[in-house]
Amino acid sequence: MRGALMYGPGDVRVTEREDPTIVQQTDAIVRVTAACICGSDLWPWRGQEDLAATPAPMGHEYVGVVEQVGSDVTDVTVGDFVVGTFFASDNTCEICRAGYQTHCVQRQPGAATGAQSELVRVPLADGTLVATPGQPDADLVPSLLAASDVLGTGWFAAVAAEVGPGKTVAVVGDGAVGLLGVLAARQLGAERIIAMSRHADRQALAREFGATDVVTERGDEGVAKIRALTGGLGAHSVIEAVGTQEAMMQAIRSTRPGGHVGYVGVSHDVALDGQELFFSGVHLHGGPAPVRRFLPELVDLIWRREIDPGKVFDLVLPLEEAAEGYKAMDERSAIKVLLTP
Amino acid sequence: MRGALMYGPGDVRVTEREDPTIVQQTDAIVRVTAACICGSDLWPWRGQEDLAATPAPMGHEYVGVVEQVGSDVTDVTVGDFVVGTFFASDNTCEICRAGYQTHCVQRQPGAATGAQSELVRVPLADGTLVATPGQPDADLVPSLLAASDVLGTGWFAAVAAEVGPGKTVAVVGDGAVGLLGVLAARQLGAERIIAMSRHADRQALAREFGATDVVTERGDEGVAKIRALTGGLGAHSVIEAVGTQEAMMQAIRSTRPGGHVGYVGVSHDVALDGQELFFSGVHLHGGPAPVRRFLPELVDLIWRREIDPGKVFDLVLPLEEAAEGYKAMDERSAIKVLLTP
Repeated sequence: MRGALMYGPGDVRVTEREDPTIVQQTDAIVRVTAACICGSDLWPWRGQEDLAATPAPMGHEYVGVVEQVGSDVTDVTVGDFVVGTFFASDNTCEICRAGYQTHCVQRQPGAATGAQSELVRVPLADGTLVATPGQPDADLVPSLLAASDVLGTGWFAAVAAEVGPGKTVAVVGDGAVGLLGVLAARQLGAERIIAMSRHADRQALAREFGATDVVTERGDEGVAKIRALTGGLGAHSVIEAVGTQEAMMQAIRSTRPGGHVGYVGVSHDVALDGQELFFSGVHLHGGPAPVRRFLPELVDLIWRREIDPGKVFDLVLPLEEAAEGYKAMDERSAIKVLLTP
Repeated sequence: MRGALMYGPGDVRVTEREDPTIVQQTDAIVRVTAACICGSDLWPWRGQEDLAATPAPMGHEYVGVVEQVGSDVTDVTVGDFVVGTFFASDNTCEICRAGYQTHCVQRQPGAATGAQSELVRVPLADGTLVATPGQPDADLVPSLLAASDVLGTGWFAAVAAEVGPGKTVAVVGDGAVGLLGVLAARQLGAERIIAMSRHADRQALAREFGATDVVTERGDEGVAKIRALTGGLGAHSVIEAVGTQEAMMQAIRSTRPGGHVGYVGVSHDVALDGQELFFSGVHLHGGPAPVRRFLPELVDLIWRREIDPGKVFDLVLPLEEAAEGYKAMDERSAIKVLLTP
């Protein structure tokens, strides 16, 4: 099969790779209908994060059709159209049942890596995959793909930030996750949603997803703007979807005492000053999003065409041109790239 | 009047000071029945924290009888026995109504400082003080005094850690706040309460307050012990009542993914690694405890003799011997010192 490999910073190639096979009887092999490039894939692309080994199979967001299952798989069957998640989880352990599938006692973080390819092996298929009610119309595929990571992550951020009716929400980060955090906030009933973005196209999409206000300032100026918009108090809920020190502090400082920060940007070189955090009085929760917790609900919302998160894909490329996709996301000329094998 | 002043590290003297007077019409003057020495008073005593100016009036935990009120005070009257809190708050603003009185928009952090004295001025008296149903029996005074800070702080930590029925709770720190965190966890219905302590007398009090297990190990060894006691998962709820880097990391690492850390130790030189926090998947909440939120309930529990938090006072001294009290707490020969003017 064909698949994308990263050889080092700035060097992604689509090459011939061996077809995956069933290793454990809880595995499934999925023929990928669509995959995508994640913001987190850009860290090693930019040389800001080391890969464990090179060349590294890339991609962990995917939808597709089940091609083969191990003998212990009972909930998905060959021919099912499925949405995957980026961490394999059994969905039955105490941690999964509490809704933290990314911390499953059997979790396999590296699992389902290599989704930017024609076929992908998914461990713990019953606990990891969610089948759609039938074969989806083509126009639903991007939204279902979004559910596999960026939508689920934005949704978790909103839930972690305790978004709800009557609340004012600020969103730090205008990438796909931040934009879908806006969509989640709207769905969860937020009264006011402030998107922080300096890019006209992303501002427009944020407004389409439900943002009521846009703040273009960053850092302390952005914080001052959020405070000015909230009677000096700060937002009730703030979504952090970047993962830098600046973004994290912007999020914490934009939150009122007793308010909630939901952070899902993978932290890079972030160090939180204990004393500032202490006196901020905020709640902090986040981490790798347990997308699986929300997936059945998100698939349902998409299937009923209540939400259209697929709009974050503003560039569709054949898998063979994956490298172009990385470049476009790195340069921010694309919000999110969909790859079709 | 007589009052305690800190002249510098290790130097507390009780001297003649001017009587406080009504400054704002929302003030009350309280004749102090009992005051105490706080763990946070030990930071400047040890030279680990600078005082804003010296000599500094000390003490912010107090109970007593209202001696005088400003013309705008309506909820407490002369002769009332009152329990105070260490931050003055109006208890009417949006932040107070959300339960974060320590972040009140009118808050006066330095207010009610100087409670280790015969008289103390309390600003925003209606929002800060809670009157007891009548004059208390003498044996209730220590417990009411505990409610003014250490009990309220331990209680907040337990609430911030989302302690509740069926949960396993670990408590880092065996000072008065940690011990009363144990008591709070018991009251809030925790199934299992693990006190972390190496001191026999504190272990005994922890068990009396409701601890079901005691772990003597600290740091990573303590974490390993907590994990061993919780099927490898970690506690649902962890109370951090120290404020050091080691204690904070011990708390975070003892918490299962999706679990809650309630931290109330005033952070000193704490820096949290963003990446570790991110991948821990815990909830983090804490800060200066909004004791006022819980005070009516705590006073009621004490009045009905449901709880006896006053047991943390294992040394009672006349105000004139305040310096002895600082020494005893610094050397950890006393858990908590009560001063009587």
